[in-house]
Amino acid sequence: MPRISHLRFFCNFAGFKKHLVSLKKRKMRCGVDIGGTNTMIGLVDENGRIADYDCIKTGKYEMAFDLVVTIAYSILRMAKVNQVKIESIGVGCPNINPETGIIEKAANLKFKSPVSLLDEFRRYFPETPLFFENDARAAALGEAVYGSAKGLKNFLEITLGTGLGCGIMAEGNLLAGNRGMAGEVGHSIIVPEGRECGCGRRGCLEQYVVANGIYRTYTELCQQLNQPPKAADYRSLAILAKAGDSIAIDTYQKTGKILGLALANMACCYAPSHIFIFGGVAQAGDVLMEPTRESFEKNLLFCYKDHIKLEFSGLMASSKNAGILGAAALADRA
Amino acid sequence: MPRISHLRFFCNFAGFKKHLVSLKKRKMRCGVDIGGTNTMIGLVDENGRIADYDCIKTGKYEMAFDLVVTIAYSILRMAKVNQVKIESIGVGCPNINPETGIIEKAANLKFKSPVSLLDEFRRYFPETPLFFENDARAAALGEAVYGSAKGLKNFLEITLGTGLGCGIMAEGNLLAGNRGMAGEVGHSIIVPEGRECGCGRRGCLEQYVVANGIYRTYTELCQQLNQPPKAADYRSLAILAKAGDSIAIDTYQKTGKILGLALANMACCYAPSHIFIFGGVAQAGDVLMEPTRESFEKNLLFCYKDHIKLEFSGLMASSKNAGILGAAALADRA
Repeated sequence: MPRISHLRFFCNFAGFKKHLVSLKKRKMRCGVDIGGTNTMIGLVDENGRIADYDCIKTGKYEMAFDLVVTIAYSILRMAKVNQVKIESIGVGCPNINPETGIIEKAANLKFKSPVSLLDEFRRYFPETPLFFENDARAAALGEAVYGSAKGLKNFLEITLGTGLGCGIMAEGNLLAGNRGMAGEVGHSIIVPEGRECGCGRRGCLEQYVVANGIYRTYTELCQQLNQPPKAADYRSLAILAKAGDSIAIDTYQKTGKILGLALANMACCYAPSHIFIFGGVAQAGDVLMEPTRESFEKNLLFCYKDHIKLEFSGLMASSKNAGILGAAALADRA
Repeated sequence: MPRISHLRFFCNFAGFKKHLVSLKKRKMRCGVDIGGTNTMIGLVDENGRIADYDCIKTGKYEMAFDLVVTIAYSILRMAKVNQVKIESIGVGCPNINPETGIIEKAANLKFKSPVSLLDEFRRYFPETPLFFENDARAAALGEAVYGSAKGLKNFLEITLGTGLGCGIMAEGNLLAGNRGMAGEVGHSIIVPEGRECGCGRRGCLEQYVVANGIYRTYTELCQQLNQPPKAADYRSLAILAKAGDSIAIDTYQKTGKILGLALANMACCYAPSHIFIFGGVAQAGDVLMEPTRESFEKNLLFCYKDHIKLEFSGLMASSKNAGILGAAALADRA
């Protein structure tokens, strides 16, 4: 009965192949970094390497439900393609309560009403361990585990992107504060009666040192000088500054002056040994860092002089991502 | 041999008296709060009651050595008078490293060079356990153990006196930062290019909301209105404001506006559930608290609204002293 033996052979072969695949299936953690503009999703192996990643435009989603469906689909697709078993998922997200997994009133997200991200994720991952943390704190954790902050006990991770995030490592622990709301320094008032902010007040730091704020400074400078703006958005402004355009450089000088003052004030609050700057805005490099450092040193209280290092994050290379790595590292801390 | 029996009787009686005294000798902790103007020293019993206290004018002492001699004499005198055995000594002091006991560069003390208070105290108390902490953190500890912050995990203790101290309780731990230097918010720059500060910079919060700063605001207002100042110093200014003097009240309105804004910024940094105001300046009461609360609520980021209580310390009564109690409580934490 050659037919049956053929069938048996094929059945066994299929089973054997499945067995081989399951042997090959590596366990990986998944890091999800929900930002105001992009949501980054990555598979992270045991050595902190990002095996695969995906990017979703956060702004497209009016409801948390729709965003989580898309994230879940992306995770499952990547797991299948890479033949990986997801052993845990860490999610970094603004304004989230790490204990309850409830997100509420995040300034840069469209869904404002309280919603349980824990419940939303649980629908698609009923048995996978899930961890939630404020996105800025997750980035600080990424810096501590995979970046330049290995072994440091007191440091700040400042993320400059759509908004300003501040993750605070204090004596080796992430500072959370009441309801996990510490580190909203982007909304500390740095210019009394200054620019109007989305939060309803005036002069918040975020209005001057994140992407939109810096671009606004640029257009204001252009107006003052009666020149049409050469840069159409923040990204092209950074390129223009690096190429030596004087108005673009002046824009970063003004930005650095305010950012340096704000960082010197933060030094008084937290007394870190290091401050790391991270995020899309930080990609501008020295045109941002030089005026920031100058203003920081000028405004720093004497007892902190020579005791605080201000530098870029160790996770600025494109192959790394503090958000993904930090979110993935949440599971290690649990 | 009546003479010998008499001698024996007297010897035994003296021994018996000594025995009775040693039985009576209660054990107490000693709290020492070294401030810019006064150093308060108190004996604290096991129930947190201050059995006796002494006050030394800190400003008289150019050298740490001389100050510690006087403190030690005061402690030993009080211990003798009260027939108390000192079981431990806690010292709260600005700019001190809690681990090494070294004090350095304190803005409001005359001795600026690094000096080991631990070594100085050890001369007089070779076997007594000694504990050191930043004065503002010690006051926060006093509030947590004996005041209004019992059971609270996230709160700020703001001390307004010669300087501004900020003790931060974060998740039930005192936030120290690198080299124990966290919480120097009195030197965060609140008015860019504002009043000159003793630290060499301009516009520090301390220049507006502590005793000398408030009195300066008052004299400036008097000058603007071409009126001679009725108050000769900060203390009489507070009395004048309570009595309804319009310039004195305006002074506190201006002070409260700046203090409220600064506290709203601190809320963004630390996310406390409570902020307690303590110290000599706080004795002004509602004339200070009302404008402060108004400005605080106005400037507070929406996500903190209804989540932070701003009130006076529970240790404002004259029979209590957050500094002494906090310093004494250091031993409990050790």
